[in-house]
Amino acid sequence: MKAVDFTGEAVRLIDQSALPHKEQWIELKTVEGVATAIKEMKVRGAPAIGVAAAYGMVFAQDPEKEADILKSARPTAVDLAHAVDFVLDMLRNGMNVIQAAAQWEKMNEEKCKKVSENGATLIKDGQKILTHCNTGFLAADAYGTALGAIITAHKQGKKIHVYVDETRPRLQGAITSWELLKENVPHHVICDSSAGFLMKKDEIDSVMVGADRIAANGDTANKIGTYSLSVLAKEQWIPFYVLAPLSSFDAGIQNGEHIKVEERDEREVLEINGMRIYPEGAHAKNFAFDITPARNITAFVNENGVFRGIEDVWKNTME
Amino acid sequence: MKAVDFTGEAVRLIDQSALPHKEQWIELKTVEGVATAIKEMKVRGAPAIGVAAAYGMVFAQDPEKEADILKSARPTAVDLAHAVDFVLDMLRNGMNVIQAAAQWEKMNEEKCKKVSENGATLIKDGQKILTHCNTGFLAADAYGTALGAIITAHKQGKKIHVYVDETRPRLQGAITSWELLKENVPHHVICDSSAGFLMKKDEIDSVMVGADRIAANGDTANKIGTYSLSVLAKEQWIPFYVLAPLSSFDAGIQNGEHIKVEERDEREVLEINGMRIYPEGAHAKNFAFDITPARNITAFVNENGVFRGIEDVWKNTME
Repeated sequence: MKAVDFTGEAVRLIDQSALPHKEQWIELKTVEGVATAIKEMKVRGAPAIGVAAAYGMVFAQDPEKEADILKSARPTAVDLAHAVDFVLDMLRNGMNVIQAAAQWEKMNEEKCKKVSENGATLIKDGQKILTHCNTGFLAADAYGTALGAIITAHKQGKKIHVYVDETRPRLQGAITSWELLKENVPHHVICDSSAGFLMKKDEIDSVMVGADRIAANGDTANKIGTYSLSVLAKEQWIPFYVLAPLSSFDAGIQNGEHIKVEERDEREVLEINGMRIYPEGAHAKNFAFDITPARNITAFVNENGVFRGIEDVWKNTME
Repeated sequence: MKAVDFTGEAVRLIDQSALPHKEQWIELKTVEGVATAIKEMKVRGAPAIGVAAAYGMVFAQDPEKEADILKSARPTAVDLAHAVDFVLDMLRNGMNVIQAAAQWEKMNEEKCKKVSENGATLIKDGQKILTHCNTGFLAADAYGTALGAIITAHKQGKKIHVYVDETRPRLQGAITSWELLKENVPHHVICDSSAGFLMKKDEIDSVMVGADRIAANGDTANKIGTYSLSVLAKEQWIPFYVLAPLSSFDAGIQNGEHIKVEERDEREVLEINGMRIYPEGAHAKNFAFDITPARNITAFVNENGVFRGIEDVWKNTME
């Protein structure tokens, strides 16, 4: 499954804003059209956004000039800028724009496939895995990271069961459940607040999550709620794995204290699918991410392997 | 504020199923009417249900016979049976039924007032308190327990700030926010999964929760998510307080392993206010409660005082 494709004439992507209730594909044939789809979160997840933007460059009359329309669609998504810059570089080197975008897509796919395969080695037959947010093909364009590892293990014939955190406020658990249903992976959705109790009942063998950014010392920024899961897993001696491609490891950031945590619109908490839940006058705090200290992380998984400590991740990149 | 009242002719109660959007009172003049309101959760919270049932007895032609209609409305609510049996006892002793119900209401109110006052001694000027679920007057008829302590501290002039867990799946945070708005207590609603991160950021000075049942050894059953909060609070050295009247302390249950945890309809997770959130075919696990081990609880608060260990609670009852 791919979240983004190129038909030869159009960028074709699954409209994530219609999921999980409707599987609806849209086709875009302009730079502005792709940029708007990114802005409106019809395509979500840094790697998937990157692939969409790379193909968006196909429609540019003046690539150097129009690159910024795409790059500014979601200014904080690092993969977006990397993808567009990669296409520009290849163009300068004389490559065809469609080939350049296809190469970016292929590199991304290979990377995510390896993260998934490496992660799957950590899953044993019969195990129950807890995951948080959405880290599947919808977010990564192909395979995914944590969810990619889970689905890979299932395809390898391991009998597994998945617990899916609903992941308030944006309820990405719904699209994770949608991906698992597509692949026939047995799972239950749970409220975020019941993960701890399931761990205590010996219902969880490991926790697998993705990462938005990993600092030099291993502190990891990821979807709000990840930190709590790491503390609860530690309390119950349950392995806690972070799965992400090397592009999410940022040696330029010393530790978690230097990662700025985005606060988002309180309406994401106060409303659900546009329906107001809280009384008029109520306010909410809405942190999009939290920071999990490196000491709570059992292992990091990237395209190069499984690493039991952040030092080993860095050593490996220097080999 | 009272959640349940007797007008002289009718049981008058605030319709909790309409909150937090509409403050709507209903009047009931039959045993069956009160029983149905309890069944349909128009009145919620064990003590509030008890008061409603006590007054429901006023309409019985044959109290001994009709008592069961009320008692069976929510078979697991211990206070409900206690309240009805109390009225029956008083009738046998020659008391008027309205007086008997009013006495139950008064006893309940005094008990909750003391729990709230005792709990308020744990809150210092300037502190930020995290609470979970709804433990205010709506649940307790008058004052409340954990939320009662918080509102009492506010009324004593202490400048406090409250963080309110939204408490999925039933989102009781919305009615807690409604109570705090009524009393002008500054607060923010948060997603349950962000409580841990707020603790890590030094934004929480104490956690205050109620209890459904407390075992002889201090293990405490309370709304799902309470156990996780207790682990996170311990990790960050934040005091974790359980507030409940003595009637919730059950010396007949040895420890938490003997408390049966109710699993409720998965639709409470899969739907929000009747709107389906998850794809067709998805299933959910929905535990209503969890068990917090006594070792994670800094102190118990009941109508007799603040107790730093469960042994002191029991010693006090024997004095």
